[in-house]
Amino acid sequence: MFEIYETKTRITDDNDARAAELRSELEAKKVFFINLMGSPGAGKTSTLVRTINALKDEFSIGVMEADMDSDVDAQTISQLGVRVIQLHTGGSCHMDADMTKRGLDRMTTEGLDVIFLENVGNLVCPAEFDVGAALKVMILSAPEGDDKPLKYPLMFTVSDVMLENKIDTKDVFDYDPEKAEERARALNPDIRTFRVSAKTGEGFDEWTSWLKEQIRTWRSER
Amino acid sequence: MFEIYETKTRITDDNDARAAELRSELEAKKVFFINLMGSPGAGKTSTLVRTINALKDEFSIGVMEADMDSDVDAQTISQLGVRVIQLHTGGSCHMDADMTKRGLDRMTTEGLDVIFLENVGNLVCPAEFDVGAALKVMILSAPEGDDKPLKYPLMFTVSDVMLENKIDTKDVFDYDPEKAEERARALNPDIRTFRVSAKTGEGFDEWTSWLKEQIRTWRSER
Repeated sequence: MFEIYETKTRITDDNDARAAELRSELEAKKVFFINLMGSPGAGKTSTLVRTINALKDEFSIGVMEADMDSDVDAQTISQLGVRVIQLHTGGSCHMDADMTKRGLDRMTTEGLDVIFLENVGNLVCPAEFDVGAALKVMILSAPEGDDKPLKYPLMFTVSDVMLENKIDTKDVFDYDPEKAEERARALNPDIRTFRVSAKTGEGFDEWTSWLKEQIRTWRSER
Repeated sequence: MFEIYETKTRITDDNDARAAELRSELEAKKVFFINLMGSPGAGKTSTLVRTINALKDEFSIGVMEADMDSDVDAQTISQLGVRVIQLHTGGSCHMDADMTKRGLDRMTTEGLDVIFLENVGNLVCPAEFDVGAALKVMILSAPEGDDKPLKYPLMFTVSDVMLENKIDTKDVFDYDPEKAEERARALNPDIRTFRVSAKTGEGFDEWTSWLKEQIRTWRSER
């Protein structure tokens, strides 16, 4: 037997107001902004590479790579020939709306149709901070386990899309996609899920076709 | 080409003073306190299970399971017949010294030789908050990639031990332990590394023998 003890509850912010403002600005410019989140090592950058390659003939793309310190991801992305800026968050475990706004101003949104933010690798903090995105995409990789929606519920609650990455290794890790999806949908009935592997390319046609359609529809309505 | 832009630097706290106080209290009681950290899905709980099983004949053990919301880990650990408390951090992405102190008071340290804190799954925030532990252990799992010390340097800088978990899957993920260790040691020359698999048990004899020796020595010096 054991006890459950609530040590702390604390989420405060005027961040939401800033995020809403930023969202309006981007809508006015018809720039579709995607916030990509996930644990360290979930495969955010490699997923981004494949996604950008599928989108870049149709859309002009910009990428903000948020990292605490390094610039390895921006180096990878810059080879795709899209506009990239590396954002260093210092000690901060997430991007907030202010940091995002400054990053966008610095990179400039001129002439861009779609902007990706690769958030800091973290299943907790980024979920709490709206950055003004039109679409929130989170990656859960098979090695992390299908129980993660139980343990990090907020991330699954706030995300529009769950990409189940490294799906080619699901048997190695006894990862059950049905279970993961069921648990995610219990928190968020509207969450869209795709089983993908950024390594093999499996599932990317479905994911990127869906995404392109979302972007087209969104932009035509603005 | 791309630019690197420092969006924010902000780490402040009187947490260190609280942590130092807590450390002294635990030393006076000869309670060896271990802070176990790692990403979601790195295998913290299963590593803990194997470690506790190797230690529990010699030491009386307590466990604090920190989680944002669920109690699945405390349920697992409670089956080992050790003292367990589940701590809920609410929205917080890490434990700090105050939360830890309250958890310890609630669980009570009476009669315990060793206490583990399983921190919130996160490679970022827990690294910033000293919780008064005698030993900081972090888990890097092979699927996360051997580049993680480059991207989350603080965690590797502050930890005493790096457990390279899921080492049985290293070939599936092109995880190079030599590279990971070299990168960790570049940040922290004193870091002790062990290659383990909580699934197969590989490497656990070496890790737990070393840990037992550390605990014995520490306690005999108090």
